Amino acid sequence: MKRLYFQRDFKRGVDGTFSWLTDELEELKEALKGTDKEATEKEFADVIAWLASLANITGIDLEKAAINKYSNKCPKCKKSPCQCPF
Amino acid sequence: MKRLYFQRDFKRGVDGTFSWLTDELEELKEALKGTDKEATEKEFADVIAWLASLANITGIDLEKAAINKYSNKCPKCKKSPCQCPF
Repeated sequence: MKRLYFQRDFKRGVDGTFSWLTDELEELKEALKGTDKEATEKEFADVIAWLASLANITGIDLEKAAINKYSNKCPKCKKSPCQCPF
Repeated sequence: MKRLYFQRDFKRGVDGTFSWLTDELEELKEALKGTDKEATEKEFADVIAWLASLANITGIDLEKAAINKYSNKCPKCKKSPCQCPF
């Protein structure tokens, strides 16, 4: 993702990239209302791609961030599976 | 993520989980305005965690979805790095 998009993302900046991410989330919301699984899968891919773009230009390793916080138990209730009440 | 949260996410359903995801994105937006990199990293982790939750309850493999669409070139312009004008 970084190799593909970093240059372009860096030029666009954080605000512009965040705005694209928000738009993609809206598209995912629409896709989830339908029954086309392939289309929904593509919208999920777009959201994660833009999230990765945003992470890249802010110097954050998305995978590492996820593993650091969500390794093998819930960071809130400290249990696996999670027992949080929401 | 599935092992940790699937039961809880499944009970909450798609709409409720999407709503959490939207809230987490707002928190990420706030964190990006600041200078605390560790806090920002945690917000990125939260967004990806809720996105994974949403994918799990809709029966979609998030990693596979991303790889299918964004393998080694941009799905729009078919180039690497991407040459799209946005």
